[in-house]
Amino acid sequence: MRKSSKRQRSKKGRLSLKPSRYEIRLAGSGGQGIITAARVLAEAISAGGDKYVCQTQSYGPEARGGASKAEIVISYETIDYPKTMNPDLLLAMNQTSCDAYFSDLKPYGLLVVDSTLVKQIPTSRAVALPFTDTARKEVGKELVANMVALGAVVRLSQIVRPDIVEETLSQKVPPAFVEMNIKAFNAGMALASQVDVDALPASAFGSEEEEL
Amino acid sequence: MRKSSKRQRSKKGRLSLKPSRYEIRLAGSGGQGIITAARVLAEAISAGGDKYVCQTQSYGPEARGGASKAEIVISYETIDYPKTMNPDLLLAMNQTSCDAYFSDLKPYGLLVVDSTLVKQIPTSRAVALPFTDTARKEVGKELVANMVALGAVVRLSQIVRPDIVEETLSQKVPPAFVEMNIKAFNAGMALASQVDVDALPASAFGSEEEEL
Repeated sequence: MRKSSKRQRSKKGRLSLKPSRYEIRLAGSGGQGIITAARVLAEAISAGGDKYVCQTQSYGPEARGGASKAEIVISYETIDYPKTMNPDLLLAMNQTSCDAYFSDLKPYGLLVVDSTLVKQIPTSRAVALPFTDTARKEVGKELVANMVALGAVVRLSQIVRPDIVEETLSQKVPPAFVEMNIKAFNAGMALASQVDVDALPASAFGSEEEEL
Repeated sequence: MRKSSKRQRSKKGRLSLKPSRYEIRLAGSGGQGIITAARVLAEAISAGGDKYVCQTQSYGPEARGGASKAEIVISYETIDYPKTMNPDLLLAMNQTSCDAYFSDLKPYGLLVVDSTLVKQIPTSRAVALPFTDTARKEVGKELVANMVALGAVVRLSQIVRPDIVEETLSQKVPPAFVEMNIKAFNAGMALASQVDVDALPASAFGSEEEEL
């Protein structure tokens, strides 16, 4: 049975209350640029200026076979425990990570999946967008699917101003790749702008929350 | 008064016992490539295959003004708390970070400083090597001082096989910069190979430990 914190509850899966803790987990396979996306997001949020941010990646036996996971904890207060416990937002860039981490999500959290690669989506409270397809078709490089996904995460969570992310990208990515990455980021923003998060079911776990 | 764990004590500041926890903190100013060095080190240790690794960077009001800090926790067991509490090895790439973090070091921990930029060294249990000077003179780019430092950290801590770090570097750095980074890494290894860690005082805090 999941604990439901009324104080922190937000149907939108967005950072809303002070003081609160907002947790993001990005997951997929190695080579999808998960950790790079997390680092850009964390630095952009930090550059926003009003929040503490802690960004972590863990490696261990479970990371063998090409799995990749990165976590970001955001708070208006000092962060004591920097790992995500129950993400408010889970980005799953492949089926394996969706299956592995979905159950950790907060009931009112938001699952975001790459519909190019995730075919079995475990909840109707999910945003499924074709990140890899969009990267290939609109930017010409599957490699930047991470930045398409980042654009969607930024648009959906509204955790940081998009122009700050673009500025961070410009500083962090080698000069020759900046334009491509920003193009991908904007493609992701555009994809997510078609989504009405408020129209999704309130709980990621069916009617479980109502039973509490 | 510092707690001294006899079980984990190692005069060498190296990961030695099972199960133990080895903590590394890398610190300097923004633009010195601290986080990149930490990510390469963490991924290399992970690729080594037998250890859990958790790599964290925190951003907050204290990170304003260009400070940069990254942490790596290494263990033979699952890592519950991924932040460093008392580093076994502290790399200080500038005076500010040396001043700020020295007191967190374990008594038998090892302070490694960039002697190009750190002029006041708070303990005789320190390894002071000219990372920035070496990067400029031997590689022609101050930018790779982080990789010179990484080479020294790898050589001093003996935490991971150097060839695994080189392999990780080859994968993580854009192709045009691989050779330069590996050259810098090897220059750092060479610098540190002249150091006899066993000849350093046992405690970073003078005779404090003997008094316990």
